[in-house]
Amino acid sequence: MSKRALISVTDKTGVVDFARELNNLGYEVISTGNTFKILQENGVDAIQIDDVTRFPEMLDGRVKTLNPYIHGGILYKRDDANHVKTVNEYKIRSIDLVAVNLYDFEGTLKAGKSHEEMIENIDIGGPSMIRSAAKNYKDVTIVVDTNDYDMIIEKLKNNDLTLEDRKRLSYKAFSTTGRYDALISSYFAGEVGDEYPEILNLTFQKEETLRYGENPHQKGVLYNQSNAKNPILNYEQLNGKELSFNNINDLHGCLEVMREFKDSEEVVSVAIKHTNPCGVGLGKDAFEAYTKCYEADTVSIFGGIVGITSTIDKETAEKLSQIFLEIVVAYDFTEEALEILKGKKNLRVLKLAKIESSLQPYDMKYLDGKLLIQDKNNSLADKYETVTKIAPTEVQLKDMEFGMKVVKNMKSNAIAIVKDGVTLALGCGQTSRIWALKNALENNSDKDFNGSVLASDAFFPFDDCVTLAKEYGITSIVQPGGSMRDQDSVDACDKYEMTMVFTGVRHFKH
Amino acid sequence: MSKRALISVTDKTGVVDFARELNNLGYEVISTGNTFKILQENGVDAIQIDDVTRFPEMLDGRVKTLNPYIHGGILYKRDDANHVKTVNEYKIRSIDLVAVNLYDFEGTLKAGKSHEEMIENIDIGGPSMIRSAAKNYKDVTIVVDTNDYDMIIEKLKNNDLTLEDRKRLSYKAFSTTGRYDALISSYFAGEVGDEYPEILNLTFQKEETLRYGENPHQKGVLYNQSNAKNPILNYEQLNGKELSFNNINDLHGCLEVMREFKDSEEVVSVAIKHTNPCGVGLGKDAFEAYTKCYEADTVSIFGGIVGITSTIDKETAEKLSQIFLEIVVAYDFTEEALEILKGKKNLRVLKLAKIESSLQPYDMKYLDGKLLIQDKNNSLADKYETVTKIAPTEVQLKDMEFGMKVVKNMKSNAIAIVKDGVTLALGCGQTSRIWALKNALENNSDKDFNGSVLASDAFFPFDDCVTLAKEYGITSIVQPGGSMRDQDSVDACDKYEMTMVFTGVRHFKH
Repeated sequence: MSKRALISVTDKTGVVDFARELNNLGYEVISTGNTFKILQENGVDAIQIDDVTRFPEMLDGRVKTLNPYIHGGILYKRDDANHVKTVNEYKIRSIDLVAVNLYDFEGTLKAGKSHEEMIENIDIGGPSMIRSAAKNYKDVTIVVDTNDYDMIIEKLKNNDLTLEDRKRLSYKAFSTTGRYDALISSYFAGEVGDEYPEILNLTFQKEETLRYGENPHQKGVLYNQSNAKNPILNYEQLNGKELSFNNINDLHGCLEVMREFKDSEEVVSVAIKHTNPCGVGLGKDAFEAYTKCYEADTVSIFGGIVGITSTIDKETAEKLSQIFLEIVVAYDFTEEALEILKGKKNLRVLKLAKIESSLQPYDMKYLDGKLLIQDKNNSLADKYETVTKIAPTEVQLKDMEFGMKVVKNMKSNAIAIVKDGVTLALGCGQTSRIWALKNALENNSDKDFNGSVLASDAFFPFDDCVTLAKEYGITSIVQPGGSMRDQDSVDACDKYEMTMVFTGVRHFKH
Repeated sequence: MSKRALISVTDKTGVVDFARELNNLGYEVISTGNTFKILQENGVDAIQIDDVTRFPEMLDGRVKTLNPYIHGGILYKRDDANHVKTVNEYKIRSIDLVAVNLYDFEGTLKAGKSHEEMIENIDIGGPSMIRSAAKNYKDVTIVVDTNDYDMIIEKLKNNDLTLEDRKRLSYKAFSTTGRYDALISSYFAGEVGDEYPEILNLTFQKEETLRYGENPHQKGVLYNQSNAKNPILNYEQLNGKELSFNNINDLHGCLEVMREFKDSEEVVSVAIKHTNPCGVGLGKDAFEAYTKCYEADTVSIFGGIVGITSTIDKETAEKLSQIFLEIVVAYDFTEEALEILKGKKNLRVLKLAKIESSLQPYDMKYLDGKLLIQDKNNSLADKYETVTKIAPTEVQLKDMEFGMKVVKNMKSNAIAIVKDGVTLALGCGQTSRIWALKNALENNSDKDFNGSVLASDAFFPFDDCVTLAKEYGITSIVQPGGSMRDQDSVDACDKYEMTMVFTGVRHFKH
């Protein structure tokens, strides 16, 4: 008796040729609704599902393949005498190949359709057939990917579609149904407002195999969470080599800082090294912002990333070209500027899509089988409350906000010393707060800190930071507050005639 | 006509009472195989699935519910006149509640059963019914969690099982089937050896809602990837408050360093602050190791985590009690030691399971909708190759390995200066390498660095680090090598009569 293939697809790509080739290979093709129609129109021999199920397609297609003549034909074990006896007894005929792809739930989701349409686009019969065939891969070939048609026909022709091949196809099938229901459950999570569900299903698609991971001995891969809203890593690459693992990670750090300034009237330029900002400058245009950013730290920027929230012009491009950078990322580039940057073959030049304020609502840390998830840190300050006798000037207040935007995005413990919209000294990733300050100052001992603002990502446990700041001429401090010893630091400020402001929002970042 | 409930469960918990209550509420209960048997034995009225499907259960249960009389009865739209007409015409009766839980694939996986048993434990009929009912939640109640039985009975009794309730149940249903197939696809990924698949389905279960995230204004949750092998965060809490988000993250950092020394004959003690080690000491016992670790940096350890790869005795517990720590973690505690530590009500005391070498094979960084995945960094050094005229002594070589184990686990750029199995100075998270060294030295300017070893996580771009090291009396350097200017650093070492060793393995960590 001839072999039988069941074909029921939403995505009709290549299905006519595939079915025809199966015909030629002696397969009887069973098909459903629209797939059947298309096969018939294209002169492919096929029989309708009703002829197998002895039951009509019904309920607008909601029930057509959920039938023992289908699932029995797929699921019976060919090497089990009792199974064979049973299917013979009930005149259930073998189905040896199942080609199914699903109602396009993901596309419907992306198109932002109504809840009713989302529900209609939840496929029931499809996943059932896929899972039946995948379970019984020892005897049945399951095809869920239109890209596999040619490979399968080729292998069938050569009679070398192996058990191992069918196992891989089964694996792909379960990945597909797993992904399908992960997307559905994630859609429902949004519908019922469940932020951190009991069961968290995350599904990703491979975007690119990278040259390596953080280090050359580690493999690295970039995945895309396709149902993510407004991914921040959203750019067009105009020049240069492909991005490395560390490039992408650093770029994310760069965009996070740029995001802080997305509504600013001024242009911001950020330089990033090892995910931390090493220089940040505000200016009336790209050139001024970049010049300030560069001069903030002319050493660390070497081999780093520069981001600018504006259009890069010729003058800025020329200045950017004077040093070795891995990436330049900006909203746009003038033609001349792009020409200049393209002069550096390896320089990755990225044109950024507008940075949206509404990003993924959470971030996470994966810790060898455990996952820490938290709300994305979308706050900056709850207040700017003066706690000293002296209040800050307008200019100081502006620098305080600038400083907090920078220090929020540095690894803890972190200190940013800023003045007139530029970072003078940054200290980050320290195991004690006083070291973060001390190192920032000592690494920039050539600079004049008189009248500058100190921003801290968390409160001061002692008044030692205030005293050290005073020695360097720093006159104002912005910090979250919240230490049991806050008053010590406030008193020290009053003694030194400095001003201090509490924001109420801590910004640890690890 | 009475309402009908379909009950088909692998986990029989509470099913008898649930079915009986449904009976009492006027539901006709339809059931399958073993569930039917148990209901009957317990005097619950139920009808067998065959009576509905007009078809026998067959193929060892592989096909019993995949039938239009089941799925039609679930899936038809009650408010659609054509649907109602169709089901009446074909004498398909309504199924209004579906209670299903699935073959225990996860349990079978954990029990390490054969591939054949894994395959048999892939449920086909169950997910199909769940998904049908969940799709049609407007009209049908889907129950996948035995913990929901009481709530549902209560609500049915009060006639207030709302559409919103059914939507939430539908959401839970798709989460369950999504998780089920994620686990199956992950099992198959292991079977076919696919490390970084095209579709990556990750599934997690909520373990604990934390007090907050990295900062008080961020919600934080801990999830568990239940199919993870040997999670490193595997401990019993013997004392203290619940762990915070930052505690867990820091603890992971602590365990990572301890893991480096898991096969060491000596005991290691690690102090962690903001995920970075601030002191590491090797000793013949817990007390010696901890004493060295503490003295390495008596300031940063304040409020930190201490891990010790041994049993903590009375003497060590007393010393640990002298300062404020968030967590003490060790393999074990003597009774006396535990008493002493329990004297500090808030101190979290954790007894660690043995650290396994085989952890999750990958780690990942989530970047707002993109995911960077890489091989877990399980290397330390490919070699210890002397590149200078002077070769290291045995003692220096031992310290080199010690230093690399520490610096590998510090945020980049990182420098560790060590001697005789203790860290003298650590510089981490810096945007330039010379700063990492300079800060390490200046933060510990009271210390004697004569004859110490410098370990670097990556190569030196210039010879400035060698020159600075020489000034402080450091006599040997271990680093990956690989800079275009390696020779400059080698020449500088030769000039200063220092020894330098290349390991060939970079350890960037961000």
